[in-house]
Amino acid sequence: MTEIFPSALPPAARAIRLSPRHALEAELMAMPPVAAMGLRIVEATGQRLRLHAPLAANVNDKGCAFGGSLTSLMTLAGWSLITLRLAEIGIEADVFVADSEIRYRAPLYADLEATAELVDGESWQVFLDTLRNRGRARLGVLAEVALPEGGVATECRSRYAVKLRG
Amino acid sequence: MTEIFPSALPPAARAIRLSPRHALEAELMAMPPVAAMGLRIVEATGQRLRLHAPLAANVNDKGCAFGGSLTSLMTLAGWSLITLRLAEIGIEADVFVADSEIRYRAPLYADLEATAELVDGESWQVFLDTLRNRGRARLGVLAEVALPEGGVATECRSRYAVKLRG
Repeated sequence: MTEIFPSALPPAARAIRLSPRHALEAELMAMPPVAAMGLRIVEATGQRLRLHAPLAANVNDKGCAFGGSLTSLMTLAGWSLITLRLAEIGIEADVFVADSEIRYRAPLYADLEATAELVDGESWQVFLDTLRNRGRARLGVLAEVALPEGGVATECRSRYAVKLRG
Repeated sequence: MTEIFPSALPPAARAIRLSPRHALEAELMAMPPVAAMGLRIVEATGQRLRLHAPLAANVNDKGCAFGGSLTSLMTLAGWSLITLRLAEIGIEADVFVADSEIRYRAPLYADLEATAELVDGESWQVFLDTLRNRGRARLGVLAEVALPEGGVATECRSRYAVKLRG
């Protein structure tokens, strides 16, 4: 992973020369509701990003994963996938979630892991070309939380709006 | 508000004879991710339920309300609307969110207030009749977070699946 330090990252992260991945993790944990979830990045390949959060901090009244935490984790996984990709190639931009469709398929009685990838038909190259040419672009991401026994607990299709800074 | 104490409520709440509204608030705050949001019920008319959460506990990297917190609050407002109605009429049932469609329309730089009501075309009477006859029923809820200057920050259309206990 290339060591670059875009101004999108917090000053503290740039000062101590964190990698983009560690800087992103620091940025996520600086948000109080995200810190409360106990989130961490467990995989970031460029094509896929996976976030983990312990069940204990994200449990509901039925002893399984709280729907709000599942949705937060899936939404953040998509946001992180795009934010990290932009940071790695040195593009300064703001990333906003625009809309989401969520299916809660089965209860999860284990730690939460959300995996985010582009939805079928989306292309990083088309997205980046549009962003450079027009200053803004949208990108669709599919995030899922798997069940430990196989199958899917929840899935979330989101569109993110990205705007170049400056 | 009638004082009834269905077994849907936590034993502690029944023991000290809380109203259904206060028992629901206690049940919500017993979930760690909800306690972290600092949520409280500010209105519960039977037709409409409104939840409040302070911005400080739910702020993102841009200084506005975190999308995950907005969605959690809207989803919980709908869940609470149904859960409180059932508790008030003494029906013991579990309420699950099945799916949601969310629009993030504008950033919110103020405390979060989510208001939930049935979507147009839904009827409490039809829902309750179906639940009593079939043991399960679905109900659509629209939850919104308003902007202090007017207009809508976010909206969430969810369907909830409800199953009688026992």
